[in-house]
Amino acid sequence: MTEINVAEQAKKAQKASKPLSVLSTKEKNEALLIIAEELEQNYAFILEENEKDLALGREKEYDQAYMDRLLLTKERVFEFANGLKELVKLDDPVGEVVTEWTLDNGLHVKNQRVPLGVIGMIYEARPNVTVDATGIALKSGNAIILKGGSSALHSNKAIISIIHQALEKTSISVEAVQFIASTDREATEQLFTLKQYIDVLIPRGGGSLIETVVRKATIPVLETGVGNVHMYVDKHADLEKALAIITNAKTDRPAVCNALETVLIHKEWFAKNKDTLISIFKEFGITVHGDQEVVQAVPGAIEASEKDWAEEYLSLDLAIKLVDDVDEAINHIEQYGTKHSEAIITEDAQVAEQFLNQVDAAAVYHNASTRFTDGSALGYGAEIGISTQKLHARGPMGLPALTTTKLKISGTGQVR
Amino acid sequence: MTEINVAEQAKKAQKASKPLSVLSTKEKNEALLIIAEELEQNYAFILEENEKDLALGREKEYDQAYMDRLLLTKERVFEFANGLKELVKLDDPVGEVVTEWTLDNGLHVKNQRVPLGVIGMIYEARPNVTVDATGIALKSGNAIILKGGSSALHSNKAIISIIHQALEKTSISVEAVQFIASTDREATEQLFTLKQYIDVLIPRGGGSLIETVVRKATIPVLETGVGNVHMYVDKHADLEKALAIITNAKTDRPAVCNALETVLIHKEWFAKNKDTLISIFKEFGITVHGDQEVVQAVPGAIEASEKDWAEEYLSLDLAIKLVDDVDEAINHIEQYGTKHSEAIITEDAQVAEQFLNQVDAAAVYHNASTRFTDGSALGYGAEIGISTQKLHARGPMGLPALTTTKLKISGTGQVR
Repeated sequence: MTEINVAEQAKKAQKASKPLSVLSTKEKNEALLIIAEELEQNYAFILEENEKDLALGREKEYDQAYMDRLLLTKERVFEFANGLKELVKLDDPVGEVVTEWTLDNGLHVKNQRVPLGVIGMIYEARPNVTVDATGIALKSGNAIILKGGSSALHSNKAIISIIHQALEKTSISVEAVQFIASTDREATEQLFTLKQYIDVLIPRGGGSLIETVVRKATIPVLETGVGNVHMYVDKHADLEKALAIITNAKTDRPAVCNALETVLIHKEWFAKNKDTLISIFKEFGITVHGDQEVVQAVPGAIEASEKDWAEEYLSLDLAIKLVDDVDEAINHIEQYGTKHSEAIITEDAQVAEQFLNQVDAAAVYHNASTRFTDGSALGYGAEIGISTQKLHARGPMGLPALTTTKLKISGTGQVR
Repeated sequence: MTEINVAEQAKKAQKASKPLSVLSTKEKNEALLIIAEELEQNYAFILEENEKDLALGREKEYDQAYMDRLLLTKERVFEFANGLKELVKLDDPVGEVVTEWTLDNGLHVKNQRVPLGVIGMIYEARPNVTVDATGIALKSGNAIILKGGSSALHSNKAIISIIHQALEKTSISVEAVQFIASTDREATEQLFTLKQYIDVLIPRGGGSLIETVVRKATIPVLETGVGNVHMYVDKHADLEKALAIITNAKTDRPAVCNALETVLIHKEWFAKNKDTLISIFKEFGITVHGDQEVVQAVPGAIEASEKDWAEEYLSLDLAIKLVDDVDEAINHIEQYGTKHSEAIITEDAQVAEQFLNQVDAAAVYHNASTRFTDGSALGYGAEIGISTQKLHARGPMGLPALTTTKLKISGTGQVR
């Protein structure tokens, strides 16, 4: 095994980030298109290498969902390439003048967007992140250091070799995209403290990965992902809307972070509509974990423990708790929520407003599915993750989230 | 000594932050005015308690500059109160709609500013931070936990007791302003990981304080302060502007973070203007630390070592290095700069543009003093510190830096 020098790679990324930070939009777009083309032309090689990861995965008996995330097909590789072509169409945030003003003393101040510099991306199985994150980083003028999950190592290495081959034909240095080709935990952890070279770490994956990065990093972290998503069905909720939204938010893609995990239902509304609810749960194969009253009412429901209220099931399981009013719902969300996405179903505008104002989360919904917390669904174009933290960027993070600002101040000799 | 339960205080602050986050601007302003009034009325008590800190300081033989930062006078207390009255005049960032759009499916998305929640402020000697930080936090709808330096403990406790007494008469809970009344290092360090209660830590003080917070905290940190500030005097620099700006940036207030530390001078310009420079250094009492050529030319100059290029003197010392061109200057700044404030003096617009584009710092200047990197000088009204990091806020941090955003999404039953 070759020695991996993570600090050396980070240093090279930083060096490459300087010319990249002032590259024109045209040059960056051309590079993205060349990468897309090379990925399409070399899909067979990528699938070959992917097969090695799949074989190891079968040996290790990974479950079906995991294997599916690992699997690449010709269609999927072409989708990666399409993602890059979509990025080309998006506005370049770099150079945008956020604000600009002139002081009484004649100093002109321009607050302008500039790239962050070097992004450190730490992620788990899905090889699509390798392409998506590289594309978003380059479009926003940043170098990137990628550390993917070890189970996708062959696939990632193949993708990176194609990206590097493509970059040779562009104005962007090959060194602007660094891949840590190691399955070694220490190699990852070295990244956490290379503050002199890396400007931000973005962990994408399970809660324990994110927690480790936050605990050990001295580089600022953009936390993504974990969503214990709630929906409060108010006394004045419309039945039809409630059913459509609950089933969509729970069953459309149960494994994603914006999927519904707990429904808090107003006691009176539940009493009136429980039969319809029960038939819907049955129809959609939803397993209910409920409080005592729910368990008594819903056939097959499992009594919920404290653990259920805090759990992100990522499956067709759903926790249900009856509440007296919106205040009880808000308090429950305050206690168990992860500040990702929270919703209220009601026809009472005043209660809706109270909920939207008082619930502390990246996205709060009135009469809509939480599945919309997503860069493309909300019209951001591309996203490098969904921030569940409050600093820098909150909710879906598009291209501007990978920029910072710089004050450019021009004078004619002004002193203080 | 009473037991200090930092976690309990943080929990109380979080609880108090909820109603505060939705308080009207009018109520917040009224509270600020009442605090200002109580500080003015009780200045004698504050000075009495301040005398205890001063006595301890004299015992410990703190230097004159330190004692001056610790010293309160009637005028200074009234200045604190005035600062609060100035805050009242500033726009409230909370509730501001940053962007708003309607999707094709009819969903209406509003991205609105909301308070961060709970601010953890860790600072050294100056008791004015206790008032300033409290005012900025409350105006932006945040609760605050203050941990001041132990040498100002009596002064800070007195100020906090007056603030609490004032808050009793307002719509803001007394619990929204927590003070860690301990000189214990462990009490401070407990703050660093109370992620469930505190949303951001802001350390203000020396480099070692900031470094400790960054290394040990799991809560996101807004780094402030350290400024190894450079000025590049180009071949085409105007002599008069250069002299005015260098002397202002170096001598106006040498101990602050936006003061000049290193001047990089184009060789030809230096050869032409060294006599004038030498007389100016003499006139202003500036001690020069220079490279070999500078030492040969400037009487009394000390030969600079590697350490000089990296040092924030905070005194009338100044490092000087001769360079061949703007590229050498930019490279030097890249190696030794702290990304705070950097300036170029030139009449060549193209070279100025290259410098402003390529130098990576919160504020870059053309033909103006770096002393303008300051919230009030740039027209921000108030500042809680100068961020030298790239995430969330860069440069002077005014009220908006203490807010985050929330997506409020309203629908009529939309699903994905």
